[in-house]
Amino acid sequence: MQLGMVGLGRMGGNIVRRLLREGHSAVVFDRDPAAVAALVAAGAAGAASLEDFVARLDVPRAAWVMLPAGDPTEATVTELAGLMQAGDVVIDGGNSFYKDDIRRAAVLNERGLHYVDVGTSGGVWGLERGYCMMIGGHKEAVDRLDPIFAALAPGLGDVPRTPGREGRDPRAERGYIHAGPSGAGHFVKMIHNGIEYGLMQAYAEGFEILRHAGAQELPEAQRFDLNLGDIAEVWRRGSVVSSWLLDLTASALAGDEDLDAFSGHVADSGEGRWTLNAAIEEAVPAHVLSAALYARFRSRQGATYADKLLSAMRKGFGGHQEPK
Amino acid sequence: MQLGMVGLGRMGGNIVRRLLREGHSAVVFDRDPAAVAALVAAGAAGAASLEDFVARLDVPRAAWVMLPAGDPTEATVTELAGLMQAGDVVIDGGNSFYKDDIRRAAVLNERGLHYVDVGTSGGVWGLERGYCMMIGGHKEAVDRLDPIFAALAPGLGDVPRTPGREGRDPRAERGYIHAGPSGAGHFVKMIHNGIEYGLMQAYAEGFEILRHAGAQELPEAQRFDLNLGDIAEVWRRGSVVSSWLLDLTASALAGDEDLDAFSGHVADSGEGRWTLNAAIEEAVPAHVLSAALYARFRSRQGATYADKLLSAMRKGFGGHQEPK
Amino acid sequence: MQLGMVGLGRMGGNIVRRLLREGHSAVVFDRDPAAVAALVAAGAAGAASLEDFVARLDVPRAAWVMLPAGDPTEATVTELAGLMQAGDVVIDGGNSFYKDDIRRAAVLNERGLHYVDVGTSGGVWGLERGYCMMIGGHKEAVDRLDPIFAALAPGLGDVPRTPGREGRDPRAERGYIHAGPSGAGHFVKMIHNGIEYGLMQAYAEGFEILRHAGAQELPEAQRFDLNLGDIAEVWRRGSVVSSWLLDLTASALAGDEDLDAFSGHVADSGEGRWTLNAAIEEAVPAHVLSAALYARFRSRQGATYADKLLSAMRKGFGGHQEPK
Amino acid sequence: MQLGMVGLGRMGGNIVRRLLREGHSAVVFDRDPAAVAALVAAGAAGAASLEDFVARLDVPRAAWVMLPAGDPTEATVTELAGLMQAGDVVIDGGNSFYKDDIRRAAVLNERGLHYVDVGTSGGVWGLERGYCMMIGGHKEAVDRLDPIFAALAPGLGDVPRTPGREGRDPRAERGYIHAGPSGAGHFVKMIHNGIEYGLMQAYAEGFEILRHAGAQELPEAQRFDLNLGDIAEVWRRGSVVSSWLLDLTASALAGDEDLDAFSGHVADSGEGRWTLNAAIEEAVPAHVLSAALYARFRSRQGATYADKLLSAMRKGFGGHQEPK
Repeated sequence: MQLGMVGLGRMGGNIVRRLLREGHSAVVFDRDPAAVAALVAAGAAGAASLEDFVARLDVPRAAWVMLPAGDPTEATVTELAGLMQAGDVVIDGGNSFYKDDIRRAAVLNERGLHYVDVGTSGGVWGLERGYCMMIGGHKEAVDRLDPIFAALAPGLGDVPRTPGREGRDPRAERGYIHAGPSGAGHFVKMIHNGIEYGLMQAYAEGFEILRHAGAQELPEAQRFDLNLGDIAEVWRRGSVVSSWLLDLTASALAGDEDLDAFSGHVADSGEGRWTLNAAIEEAVPAHVLSAALYARFRSRQGATYADKLLSAMRKGFGGHQEPK
Repeated sequence: MQLGMVGLGRMGGNIVRRLLREGHSAVVFDRDPAAVAALVAAGAAGAASLEDFVARLDVPRAAWVMLPAGDPTEATVTELAGLMQAGDVVIDGGNSFYKDDIRRAAVLNERGLHYVDVGTSGGVWGLERGYCMMIGGHKEAVDRLDPIFAALAPGLGDVPRTPGREGRDPRAERGYIHAGPSGAGHFVKMIHNGIEYGLMQAYAEGFEILRHAGAQELPEAQRFDLNLGDIAEVWRRGSVVSSWLLDLTASALAGDEDLDAFSGHVADSGEGRWTLNAAIEEAVPAHVLSAALYARFRSRQGATYADKLLSAMRKGFGGHQEPK
Repeated sequence: MQLGMVGLGRMGGNIVRRLLREGHSAVVFDRDPAAVAALVAAGAAGAASLEDFVARLDVPRAAWVMLPAGDPTEATVTELAGLMQAGDVVIDGGNSFYKDDIRRAAVLNERGLHYVDVGTSGGVWGLERGYCMMIGGHKEAVDRLDPIFAALAPGLGDVPRTPGREGRDPRAERGYIHAGPSGAGHFVKMIHNGIEYGLMQAYAEGFEILRHAGAQELPEAQRFDLNLGDIAEVWRRGSVVSSWLLDLTASALAGDEDLDAFSGHVADSGEGRWTLNAAIEEAVPAHVLSAALYARFRSRQGATYADKLLSAMRKGFGGHQEPK
Repeated sequence: MQLGMVGLGRMGGNIVRRLLREGHSAVVFDRDPAAVAALVAAGAAGAASLEDFVARLDVPRAAWVMLPAGDPTEATVTELAGLMQAGDVVIDGGNSFYKDDIRRAAVLNERGLHYVDVGTSGGVWGLERGYCMMIGGHKEAVDRLDPIFAALAPGLGDVPRTPGREGRDPRAERGYIHAGPSGAGHFVKMIHNGIEYGLMQAYAEGFEILRHAGAQELPEAQRFDLNLGDIAEVWRRGSVVSSWLLDLTASALAGDEDLDAFSGHVADSGEGRWTLNAAIEEAVPAHVLSAALYARFRSRQGATYADKLLSAMRKGFGGHQEPK
């Protein structure tokens, strides 16, 4: 099956590569001609402009947009839609906010176009391991694209089957789901990332406590000088906390247990924030997911105004002058 | 009435001064002879040693220990108790852990001595405003010391009376309570401080959000350049969040809204930590009180190991290299 | 000065009453004729319709809308604006979302109308104590309305002056501020409420720990049976945690320490949620304010799905069957 | 090699079974003769009393105690130690508090006995998958017991090797580590469980948000009716949040997505609480791990006093009467 891809960064490029390997064909476009050339060399058909891109696609067209969320995606989806016709499908595979999907889908649907949102997890590992995909959109469009999704997904692999899933949608076990109407794919991916933040912070706090178990302020008999790399490794074997994130932790600690390569400033992307907005909208308590996001905010700040204000109050009531 | 005071730091010294002003008498001791001399000049009787101190006290004796919690208090209470006799009272007015009170009271009670723990709030303002006191110990000892507590407490002052308190213990309105047996005074004071941390952090977070309301990352139409000093001031007048801590905040912001005098490193004393230990022991959720303490921990740290570990994981799954 | 008031619920009605007492005049309208009649009896001029209301106002008009935030306020502001002319002022005194203010102000400004947003704190106590007001809008309109704000505000009263405020805007001490352009008033009021949630939860957690200090699961020597009413009362006198919320707590506990009149289901209004959205938008960590809101969410839920899922996992790895 | 086992519950019994399968021998004792008989049938030597148990062990003895933490473990370790002699080893394989280990080890060491603490993860799955073990104690004793640990551990299995571990302690990859001196094993296991709570709560909150994504209070266009079982399943395939806990979640949801078998009351064991105590002692912020524990506390409570107090304050300042 043919897929068009706009946006040939690491994610977009690798998706095309994986499709070509699996015997599909691709038309590609990027503002950077070198990115186009690289994929043409890998077997894709290159386009010189968005118009050219649309012209090269078989009807009904399937055009995947893999660009930064927000303005770049919005502009390209809008322009593409203007060039396409009823029955065509625009796929947003980036990290869009699900309410933007809902809005864009309504606009495209009025003109008979389909809008499919695909949340993907797998990052740099996707080319080899396959992409875990959460898909939103009309059944007709999602079904039509099934060969593409099946090729991109990891498949059954050697992950043990979950007992009791007989008779359920087989796509989930192969690594992709049709989550619901437009927006549902990115909604589920958003929560995925919110959980990811929480999981990461749980490990981070635990390892921080382990790291400080030998601190001088502790009574000497209770100090431990622990090997964090070995601890991460042993937990990979039969423990309740084993996970892929723990595998990555064990790898990182095998290299440099002090993590000196990292500044401690941790970025956050929109999904973690949107997850909290969704929790607040639903009135669902999300203490852990919030705390995980706030820890990232705090990691990027030096002395905060909030902290200074605490000191000012302490000075006010107790004459405490905090050490500078 | 006569009171003995061991430990003539700011708190101990001011308590003696307030008692002398109110017509009581005092015997004082401190390892620092200059501290003793200063209070002798104010009208107290000075002692040259703990033995001398005990010898100068009228029987049944009342000896108030106002020293740092932990070893200094433990050592002095133990030594004092060895010099005193059945019917005497040792008062621990410091910030002791309530389980230490319970243990020490049991030891003293075996020898017929009383142990009274007094948690005091009021800090540097106590000399003028009076001390808010939470008292633990046997009724007999607490009642005997009532003239002392009445003199130290703020009294009714001009604080509006709480409706519906007719027939209740009048001491609470005058600023002191007999909270329960030994340990109860410091237990209540501990929770007082736990709450204090939570209140302070609530203001701190709120003012931090106000402070960043003009941040460049926000859409221009939604940026506000707010006057935090005026905001703190206006909230003192008829708003739901008015409090003494807000009064102090308004004072601090009237002086320097940027709070440049403060490093942002915020100390914590034992009570905040013990409050959480108590909550955990009782299985009471204490999200806010915990978060307030943790914010102080974090304020004293630069880049944390936990944060670096998050970056290491992010690099592992996404190839993200956090900026240094 | 004359003020028009649309919406004569408790807040709107009391604002009019306070203005009349202070010698101002008012034109009032409400969908409920009985509400209009009640204020006409108090000295206001009643209107039979919005058109009539606008017709009765002196030019340049000042019309205060005091309706529930969201659709009711939106509809009335829009309709009013359609009836008014350049130079008139519409005041939104409700609990609107500040981004709605910014949007509405832009629409009104295009037609030469002013839009002033006023966040008020004081609730049922405002009629007697005065209203604490945070105001957003153009300087010209806010200055013109100054007599109204001065009459509604608490004034200096007997609250001690904050040292160091000489030369600063005197309105803050009298209980109102011009916070900034349209939206700034509700923004500051929103944060006020966010802080309020945090303060309340800090007290709530502290008193819960005190309440459970006598729990049977604790070692007998460490159990305390505390008098929470007396504790709240004593903290009002000279302690660091004294506040108006503590006054209210002392009142409530003087009445019924068991609080049997309350179900434990705690409502939340928009401001607490919006405060978190603002914190997230600004990347400000708000652990305490979040936890306070989530505690309210949780208070309204029985067994949660999240909790059941924990049990399901525990059963999965440990064979634990939670007791039903 | 021979091992003695006291305490033949599920964990103790299965450990013996796994050792017997691997060619080791065992002497077993339990207060319940039926439990002894069951393991004798499986090939172990049964003892009639602790004295008999000690008498049947080869010198130097190795006696594993697998009993509930606290009094049962304390009593049995003490009694065993009294019957054993210099050079023997007592192993505490339960969930003891690490400070109890440190104290007990000091007592046993004075008499020439070794004390080895083993934290084990793996629960009901350990018999088949092997036990992940974190071990504290003297090197001499831990090395002597190596054949036992090697037999109980999962071994390399089919878990991918962590790159960069060449030259590091090979025991970690086989599923057990010598973490440090006595207490270090249970310390590491404690943090393991603290992390476990955090991971579980992250999933729980995320799935709760997914569960409520179709709530009636949301705008209709933004409601999603999601298949949580399929979502859990798809995340097992190539996503960043894949883990063993997610495998268990997928299993549970494949059975009953509504989780009606669970009451929502979630137990907690000591380790989650101790983890927070350790964090507080080390001044390490642990927002996520705390929140996870508090969520369990809250899950077991109906209407809380804290919540009622919030309502009482709300009534005080706003006249709000919460619905019952």
